[in-house]
Amino acid sequence: MNQKVTFFLELIENRIKNERIKKTPFNLYKPILYTLENGGKRIRPLLFLLTIDALGNKKDIDKFIDCALILEFFHNSTLIHDDIMDEAETRRNKATVYKKWGRDIAILAGDVLLLTAFKFFHKIPKNILCKILNDFIDVTIKVCEGQQLDLDYQKIKSIKIKQYYKMIRLKTAELLAFSLKFAGLLLNKELSTIKTLYKIGINLGLAFQIQDDYLDVYGNEEKFGKKIGNDIICAKKNFLYVKALSCLNEKDKFEFIKLYHDNDPSKVSKIVSIYNNINLNQLVIQELSFLKQKILKDFEILSKKYNVITLKEFCLSLMDRDK
Amino acid sequence: MNQKVTFFLELIENRIKNERIKKTPFNLYKPILYTLENGGKRIRPLLFLLTIDALGNKKDIDKFIDCALILEFFHNSTLIHDDIMDEAETRRNKATVYKKWGRDIAILAGDVLLLTAFKFFHKIPKNILCKILNDFIDVTIKVCEGQQLDLDYQKIKSIKIKQYYKMIRLKTAELLAFSLKFAGLLLNKELSTIKTLYKIGINLGLAFQIQDDYLDVYGNEEKFGKKIGNDIICAKKNFLYVKALSCLNEKDKFEFIKLYHDNDPSKVSKIVSIYNNINLNQLVIQELSFLKQKILKDFEILSKKYNVITLKEFCLSLMDRDK
Repeated sequence: MNQKVTFFLELIENRIKNERIKKTPFNLYKPILYTLENGGKRIRPLLFLLTIDALGNKKDIDKFIDCALILEFFHNSTLIHDDIMDEAETRRNKATVYKKWGRDIAILAGDVLLLTAFKFFHKIPKNILCKILNDFIDVTIKVCEGQQLDLDYQKIKSIKIKQYYKMIRLKTAELLAFSLKFAGLLLNKELSTIKTLYKIGINLGLAFQIQDDYLDVYGNEEKFGKKIGNDIICAKKNFLYVKALSCLNEKDKFEFIKLYHDNDPSKVSKIVSIYNNINLNQLVIQELSFLKQKILKDFEILSKKYNVITLKEFCLSLMDRDK
Repeated sequence: MNQKVTFFLELIENRIKNERIKKTPFNLYKPILYTLENGGKRIRPLLFLLTIDALGNKKDIDKFIDCALILEFFHNSTLIHDDIMDEAETRRNKATVYKKWGRDIAILAGDVLLLTAFKFFHKIPKNILCKILNDFIDVTIKVCEGQQLDLDYQKIKSIKIKQYYKMIRLKTAELLAFSLKFAGLLLNKELSTIKTLYKIGINLGLAFQIQDDYLDVYGNEEKFGKKIGNDIICAKKNFLYVKALSCLNEKDKFEFIKLYHDNDPSKVSKIVSIYNNINLNQLVIQELSFLKQKILKDFEILSKKYNVITLKEFCLSLMDRDK
């Protein structure tokens, strides 16, 4: 890992460790601590700090760390609630809050973690606090809308690629895009730069989610930290499913849809065989390469004014991850 | 109802009706509209507007209505989540979001309603936005802590009156107190006034919850809008239970605790008989009268400087409600 990324990651981890999370009620704060300490890749706060750094703030990065936590706390709160809806058993190789403490505590712990994210807003200068609060709220609501579409799509069988993109844009890409844009807003950068940062974040988020969908089938269970084939078991309308629909002939499509919505967990290996037969692997690589080109073009624009090498490398590494 | 209260209630209802709640995803926004339009007593925004009015802002009440909605939106979001935890069937005489749309949509609708509350912060002047945001976050977290204690207490049999008070203070009284304090903060009133408003709100909140506990047994199901005896069925540690424990002798207490935690719904009438035998009715009246004296004393202080007649009358009416 790049030295700067390692340094920023350490800053984030230390800041989280030093955040004085309350102790009581014990049953409420224990799962919150468990969630925050249970690692994760800290992608959103890293993207934010790397953008702050790229835009020219080299020396006083410390004063931006609390803002970085807004993103991490909110993200983790959504994971706690999502895991209830997915009835997920593991996350980051450990039991989910839902499995360990049950539905009710998972709801409350998610609520409190979400609310705690707002505590860090006091670090934002008064003159832009209102604007950033509004933008952040819009993003958080979009994330919930994306999760709702994800739930809705589980009940529909025929999903078009456009619908899929709408869902992952809301659910994943908007928060990643905000992580970059947030840095631009805080440093009062020109509108064109903020727009380019936002575009990079959106395309990165789309690529990130497609990679996530890919790892659900082709990942290594231990590295990935989640159960392989979980999307298939839940009949999630992920990239692989939507793309397979567009590749299969009418007869095969009919069989595939039927099998995908079966309640028998043994369907996983059969679905994977179908994916292998139509070389879905290659189609994912194509799609990711298409998004990568867009991202590189936008970094090209930014590089005329800013030193974005580390930020760019980090973004590209996210598109090529195995966990 | 007092003319001013009616007028403010109309302002609140109209503002809620005119709030442009998004339409899609349909499955997410339908339950939010359903919750907001489903009446309720609008106690928190009313307390807020009546305090604004009492502190001297008679003419430009309109510009404070958005702030009043912060309280109402947040409160409703907690009801949606609480109803999941309680597996409640009805609220305000209609099916709960949980019963009508299920767990997952209730979680997301609660999240979005909570987040939407923050949208109204843009109406708060920049110089006090940060202070009010921080205070509000503290209160919202306390409400969640109170709900956690409520869940915790369902698993413990012996609850002391002090523990009960801690729970209802967090769960109910803090938000009511903030509704009054918020007005003082916005109008930049002196610290002593803000403290007195807060104290009134706390005692009012405690009384309000004790009244709520009382109505669970002695209320009229249709007027109250909730199922009678629900607290007993859920073995909730409400005021009646805690007070009964302190009145019964050791042998009767043992039988009472056993019966209260039974899974048979027919226990409700037996528990009510016990309550009647020890004249719990009178003990509730005593407790409410004690809290009322405290509230009146604080209104006495405020009345030296402000015209608090309508606010006081409204507070007293809340302690004497039948729904």
